[in-house]
Amino acid sequence: MSKPIAKPRVTSDEGAGTKGTRWVWSFAEGDGKDKRLLGGKGANLCEMTQIGINVPPGFVVTTAACLAYLESPQGDLPAGVMEQARDEMARLKAATGKSFGDPNDPLLVSVRSGSALSMPGMMDTILNLGLNEHSLAGLIAQTGDPRFGYDAYRRLIQLFGKVAFDIPDEKFDEQFESVKELAGVESDVDLQAEDLEEIVRRFLQVVRKHTGRPFPSDPYDQLEIAIKAVFGSWMGRRAVEYRREFGITSEMAHGTAANVVAMVFGNMGPDSSTGVAFTRDPGTGENVLYGEYLVNAQGEDVVAGIRTPKPIREMAEEMPSMYEQLLELSRKLEEHYREVQDFEFTNERGTLYCLQTRNGKMNAVARVKTSVEMVDEELIDREGALLRVTPDDLEQILYPRIDPSFDGSPLASGLGASPGAACGQVIFDADRAQLLGRQGVNVILVRQETKPEDIHGFFAAQGILTSRGGGTSHAAVVARGMGKPCVVGAEGLMVDEDRAQAISGEVVVKEGDIITIDGAAGHIYLGDVPTVEAEFFDELDTLLTWADGAARLQVMANADTPEDALRAISYGAMGIGLCRTERMFNAPERLPIVVDMIIAEDDEQRAAALGRLLPMQRADFRGIFEAMSPRPVIIRLLDPPIHEFLPARARLEEEIDQLHRLRDALRGMDVLTSTMKSLEDRAPKTDNGFSDAAKELADVRRVDRVIARKEAMLRRSQELRETNPMLGHRGVRLGLTYPEIYKMQVRAVLEAAAECLKEGVRVRPEIMVPQVCTSQELTRVKEYVKEAEAEVRKEYGVAVDFAFGTMIEVVRACLRAESLAEVADFFSFGTNDLTQAAFSFSREDAETKFLPLYNDREILQDNPFEVLDRMGLGRLMALTVEWGRSKQPDLEVGICGEHGGHPDSIRFCHEIGLDYVSCSPPRIPVARLAAAHANVDSGGSVDNRT
Amino acid sequence: MSKPIAKPRVTSDEGAGTKGTRWVWSFAEGDGKDKRLLGGKGANLCEMTQIGINVPPGFVVTTAACLAYLESPQGDLPAGVMEQARDEMARLKAATGKSFGDPNDPLLVSVRSGSALSMPGMMDTILNLGLNEHSLAGLIAQTGDPRFGYDAYRRLIQLFGKVAFDIPDEKFDEQFESVKELAGVESDVDLQAEDLEEIVRRFLQVVRKHTGRPFPSDPYDQLEIAIKAVFGSWMGRRAVEYRREFGITSEMAHGTAANVVAMVFGNMGPDSSTGVAFTRDPGTGENVLYGEYLVNAQGEDVVAGIRTPKPIREMAEEMPSMYEQLLELSRKLEEHYREVQDFEFTNERGTLYCLQTRNGKMNAVARVKTSVEMVDEELIDREGALLRVTPDDLEQILYPRIDPSFDGSPLASGLGASPGAACGQVIFDADRAQLLGRQGVNVILVRQETKPEDIHGFFAAQGILTSRGGGTSHAAVVARGMGKPCVVGAEGLMVDEDRAQAISGEVVVKEGDIITIDGAAGHIYLGDVPTVEAEFFDELDTLLTWADGAARLQVMANADTPEDALRAISYGAMGIGLCRTERMFNAPERLPIVVDMIIAEDDEQRAAALGRLLPMQRADFRGIFEAMSPRPVIIRLLDPPIHEFLPARARLEEEIDQLHRLRDALRGMDVLTSTMKSLEDRAPKTDNGFSDAAKELADVRRVDRVIARKEAMLRRSQELRETNPMLGHRGVRLGLTYPEIYKMQVRAVLEAAAECLKEGVRVRPEIMVPQVCTSQELTRVKEYVKEAEAEVRKEYGVAVDFAFGTMIEVVRACLRAESLAEVADFFSFGTNDLTQAAFSFSREDAETKFLPLYNDREILQDNPFEVLDRMGLGRLMALTVEWGRSKQPDLEVGICGEHGGHPDSIRFCHEIGLDYVSCSPPRIPVARLAAAHANVDSGGSVDNRT
Repeated sequence: MSKPIAKPRVTSDEGAGTKGTRWVWSFAEGDGKDKRLLGGKGANLCEMTQIGINVPPGFVVTTAACLAYLESPQGDLPAGVMEQARDEMARLKAATGKSFGDPNDPLLVSVRSGSALSMPGMMDTILNLGLNEHSLAGLIAQTGDPRFGYDAYRRLIQLFGKVAFDIPDEKFDEQFESVKELAGVESDVDLQAEDLEEIVRRFLQVVRKHTGRPFPSDPYDQLEIAIKAVFGSWMGRRAVEYRREFGITSEMAHGTAANVVAMVFGNMGPDSSTGVAFTRDPGTGENVLYGEYLVNAQGEDVVAGIRTPKPIREMAEEMPSMYEQLLELSRKLEEHYREVQDFEFTNERGTLYCLQTRNGKMNAVARVKTSVEMVDEELIDREGALLRVTPDDLEQILYPRIDPSFDGSPLASGLGASPGAACGQVIFDADRAQLLGRQGVNVILVRQETKPEDIHGFFAAQGILTSRGGGTSHAAVVARGMGKPCVVGAEGLMVDEDRAQAISGEVVVKEGDIITIDGAAGHIYLGDVPTVEAEFFDELDTLLTWADGAARLQVMANADTPEDALRAISYGAMGIGLCRTERMFNAPERLPIVVDMIIAEDDEQRAAALGRLLPMQRADFRGIFEAMSPRPVIIRLLDPPIHEFLPARARLEEEIDQLHRLRDALRGMDVLTSTMKSLEDRAPKTDNGFSDAAKELADVRRVDRVIARKEAMLRRSQELRETNPMLGHRGVRLGLTYPEIYKMQVRAVLEAAAECLKEGVRVRPEIMVPQVCTSQELTRVKEYVKEAEAEVRKEYGVAVDFAFGTMIEVVRACLRAESLAEVADFFSFGTNDLTQAAFSFSREDAETKFLPLYNDREILQDNPFEVLDRMGLGRLMALTVEWGRSKQPDLEVGICGEHGGHPDSIRFCHEIGLDYVSCSPPRIPVARLAAAHANVDSGGSVDNRT
Repeated sequence: MSKPIAKPRVTSDEGAGTKGTRWVWSFAEGDGKDKRLLGGKGANLCEMTQIGINVPPGFVVTTAACLAYLESPQGDLPAGVMEQARDEMARLKAATGKSFGDPNDPLLVSVRSGSALSMPGMMDTILNLGLNEHSLAGLIAQTGDPRFGYDAYRRLIQLFGKVAFDIPDEKFDEQFESVKELAGVESDVDLQAEDLEEIVRRFLQVVRKHTGRPFPSDPYDQLEIAIKAVFGSWMGRRAVEYRREFGITSEMAHGTAANVVAMVFGNMGPDSSTGVAFTRDPGTGENVLYGEYLVNAQGEDVVAGIRTPKPIREMAEEMPSMYEQLLELSRKLEEHYREVQDFEFTNERGTLYCLQTRNGKMNAVARVKTSVEMVDEELIDREGALLRVTPDDLEQILYPRIDPSFDGSPLASGLGASPGAACGQVIFDADRAQLLGRQGVNVILVRQETKPEDIHGFFAAQGILTSRGGGTSHAAVVARGMGKPCVVGAEGLMVDEDRAQAISGEVVVKEGDIITIDGAAGHIYLGDVPTVEAEFFDELDTLLTWADGAARLQVMANADTPEDALRAISYGAMGIGLCRTERMFNAPERLPIVVDMIIAEDDEQRAAALGRLLPMQRADFRGIFEAMSPRPVIIRLLDPPIHEFLPARARLEEEIDQLHRLRDALRGMDVLTSTMKSLEDRAPKTDNGFSDAAKELADVRRVDRVIARKEAMLRRSQELRETNPMLGHRGVRLGLTYPEIYKMQVRAVLEAAAECLKEGVRVRPEIMVPQVCTSQELTRVKEYVKEAEAEVRKEYGVAVDFAFGTMIEVVRACLRAESLAEVADFFSFGTNDLTQAAFSFSREDAETKFLPLYNDREILQDNPFEVLDRMGLGRLMALTVEWGRSKQPDLEVGICGEHGGHPDSIRFCHEIGLDYVSCSPPRIPVARLAAAHANVDSGGSVDNRT
């Protein structure tokens, strides 16, 4: 390159006169960065030319010329355009040795449109300009191939007729087919030179008939008309509509350029070829040339599918030197663009031309792999590598999913509550799911809605499907926590648990039928739908490690068990941001004890039940601490209302009813057998007493005891009933009305930590209080903690280093941030509840009742339970951080709501200065990358050391 | 007065040495405003003395001396106290002509404590200091009354012994009783001089025995000991506890003063007397002297109740000149204090002394009346008059209430949901309540909870009582709107509607039993408890008119019917701030149409039902507009979730069941009669079809139709079921999913307004949208309004001038205030819902489950549903006003939640710059006064023109 690339931009706005304006830029001179003036394609051709890629020579007539033309009342091109074009044609002659319209060895050119943004509906291409009866003869003479010559000419006439004179394709197609019929051939390729000559003759007649004038034979007339046609297509109906629909303003794209390029031909014989290629495999990311080619063919033939192209690796055998040239081209392109390229090439008799290149689209795995390898190859730096991969890409990778090529239609749809695809037998009962699960059967647990007593069914199932409930329903929350695919609120599915069937329209799904659920999209399919497995591989690890070095936000996990904790670590969690202790209450062997606690008639009975729970919770915490050591573990004290631990009232009533009948039956032994049969079928395995009673038939007193217990549960359940459970007696409100519960939990945390410390396991427990609305609540709970800490220190002889903090999930907590910051070491936004409170939307009700309509009609842009509401709730969160830190500058602030795993929300969390986000383990990689993006985009630096 | 009143204050803090400190101030010189130094009583005596009231001469030993004494390690009075006291005694001698300890004509003094704040538990009074065996003789000689002399002496010994030497009263009482027995008399007054002489002797022995020393006979010893005893009582156990309990800091009251006052005697013969009086009647406010007196008695005898005092008006006959002196004293006191005074006086042989005065406590009616009259008398100005009456005073006046003198204990208690007392027969069924109500029977409707279908029972009842639900339950809200007394959530009462009885402990209340409910305190009493009627009178009108002139906040009414509107105007409403249109849906004859709308299967059916509702709503609005003309009327579009208009599911199920049985019965006519009997008893009168069907027995098909309808209702009710109805499908969410409803309502408003305008009635409708969380919602509804407005303008030929605004009852609405202010003309805070959302408390659940404990343990200072939470929600409200006005400076902002009627909350609304408050009609007077107070207290001026 002898010419400097950077030069002053010239636009039509410049100066009053247009006489001296430069309307035309040769590829060797145009500014490859100025897409606005030269259009995307033109700029690309200039850029390639100037970096030494062998592009056919040519020039760009600017978008400025286009706009000036469109404004001209007479429909003239601005003065100077054609003069400058002629100058450029002279340069093309110099470059190619051929001359435009030369009857001996004619230069042919194509004219193509190209605006700053690619846009359908504009005239695309006219090929082979410069042909007329004289130059055609020269072309035939030069190539020695009359068929090639006539074919080229008829292409010119048809494209020109269509684009410049609006002649419908049919007019040409009719003649073409007629000649084929005369010649008795089926395929175009079987047409002989004389057939094509006849076609040329007839095409010329079509043009004359349609326009009343002969086809323009002067090459420069052809060129001028073609340029005007390209420019005119900018205001074509489809182009205008497209711009309106996608909101493309004249700021973003103003007019189209016209690119005039010397023709090169891949169909000049067996030593010619054409093809498309990626510089690396876009499916695997492997660093090998990938694509396909055709020998002796034109570019459009590859696309048209008339002949089957060959994989590009065959070229290494078939045309080794051309293959070498291709590799060299590929290398050059990547070196310049520092990105995988998707390019078009033509080999005209051994000379390789690159006709076009653009960044290659590839799948997520390939994107990750190429990112890491390109850093190793020093093509890009880590920042570039991180930004090349979007968090959404990782989402594709990290869950098993329905094969993207599958296009069956779903049986029904609900809300995608926990991503991933799962397939298995439909089972309507948790006990049965557990039974089959243990036998190794893949099971989908299907319920109207789930309750804590179904938890063993979750463990056993591949996926969960409910016909009721929203994204915070029990099923959704638990499944997400376990990382199991889950669809909830599939209201189109009538689930009848008693009859063990589900109905959708005409279809009846029975127990044992196979279904597949898509927990991302929320679809349910009949049968076993092909899925694609989750992938985790070295390059991803590397990339995420770089992400950690580039992020300011820490990424923590929501995890409730030692197994969860280990999983979280495998995903790269830097600690646990939310350990929900109620999950521990739900374990099948503990639920009866929790029920004892709930139905306790006095403090003593309650204390006894809690006393039995303490060692279990301590063991849980110990397991988690050991798994996470030395990382921090934030433990949230009991949150849900306690009636959630009791079975549904309707079920209790029915059981009591049946038990009464059982007792009656026991008295009159004759009706015994049938009652017992039905009881055994329905007997819940999750609660003690009932099934035992069924076994010990003879003991009426035992049944009486069970009845009494069930009745106590029913009574308590009625007492605890709430109108709006979301806003009810839960969290710290419960912790203050039944202090024993929190005291037990705090004690279990501190004892577990002390045990670890004594064995040299480093731990950092952080105790978090849910549903706080005033600092008084926090102060009271802090007193429990201090008391327990002193006792444990005395008993174990070690001092546990812990932190004490609060969820911020009640609006008033935000508004009292200063005063909470005086008591808490850290804040953790619970944006699920905060969103409900800020919108006054109950998620379960909203997502089934009106949110879909709100989103459809754009009353709300997004579902705020999925995408954090920056404009509303976000404003409050930002103020909360500001207020809290005004009182305690070191206040650690994080988020543990579901939004903590979503890229947009993570970006927002970064912007308002949070310290960490916490999300379910499978989302951790997404979050790590999103955290890095957020920091890099706001000017943060990337750690290049590790 | 020759001495100037104002003088430099002297405190013990002043200077290092205490030698020159002035510890003692004569009444003629002490600063009457310096309660801190002189104590309340001392300052009062100084002030009275200096304005020319005839107070017995005396002096104050300062609180500074008290503190110095208490700090003295040796237990000495500070140097100089006794010297200065002696100087003052010399001045007393000059004033009275008598000398302390004089054996011929002794000066006697009392010593009394008196701190800045009055406080029980401190030593109060020692009388008759200066007596010993010598001066006693002089006293007897001077008065010629040995009985008087001995009586005076024994009083000194007993009081002194008790206060200074801690001798228990019993020791003296035993001796006193023993002498009475010896003398053979029943009453103290029958004791003769010699009996009292014996008592003196024995009392002196008691002192000697208890202290081991003789009773101090030196008058100055007596004085010093008495002063020390008074000072020492400041640190007595009861006084210290009292200060701790009421949070009285040493800033507020530091030490007590000791007041030394020359004794005067109302028991010096038939020309002497003593009494207490109010300058005006504290019960009625009438401007007459009010009080009682005893001839020939000491002050303590009036209080002791040994003799029955006479009403003071009798003094006008009995002692006319003394009565004239009293009137003159009364006039002087009011002229100086500019407040009704409650004073003590003693007439010693025709000379009137005033011993004490303080502001008179009076009831609310008297307070209002005296306020207005004192302005007329130019004793105070309007500002003073307004501030003399508290909003709480008005609350006492404006509801009928339980007679304050009644002290029975309640049968049960719940939440006082709507103030006022009501008495009547217990009725458990709305239909029956209506029946009896129409017969003129006073009825209390008692239910577990109420539903819209019970509304006719509300109209018929004197009061409403429920065993479930909180302050926003249906019963509470409707009763408040109607201004009917209501108690909700009386959980101690087991209401069994089926058996028509309610049980509380041992007591069974049956239908027809009489109860009385107190809707303010939340109590329920068996039987007819005496009540006091509401009062509204001229002076109250006057005062409230002044209040309006002194307020910046406008006071509007929550009113839903023309009757409500008229009532609101009678209470002085300046418009309607909240007209709830759903109340119109609840009227018995409309509910079936509303049900039609809800169970409609398509838009057409729904439109038909709405078409029938339109003329009804139009007529409602017209009635309200006419009543309020030309005041503004803010109409809130439908707010509650529509399932609230359907009967409870359990009831529907039961009815369907019964109807099936009816149909079977109709088929087999033999079992007909008994089924029908039971059906008729239970037939609901509020819904069409069922009871009609019961009458037309023969028509099975008709029953089938009713069954079909009931089943449709049940189905729809199940579809509409919500987990958290508070946060559900309601308000504008409903208005946007079923646009026909809001369109109908808007149309009805505008048509009613147009009809009024055409008849020359000025109207100002304002349309308000509930539950808004984004400006998009508001924009959509505004489109409905614009459309309807254009149609109505065309149809009626008049342009309705209306405003369009939004409730601010969703937290996100606060956070998006700027954008809402671009669409709305006004904001109206709905603080009921906002409080629920800010705290994440469901009111119904919170008030029965944990709020009482939160208030008891001071986790929250107040119930935020009653007292607006300034610290939390208030902060958000203030920001909302600021944000909204930043976009639209003229934005009108008000409040229509229940807090709008509570003084503290009104003050806060004033502070954050609201334009109006809206409350239920009976609270309007309270609100008007509170609005005035808020403005006056923040420096606003009072309009004195009207």
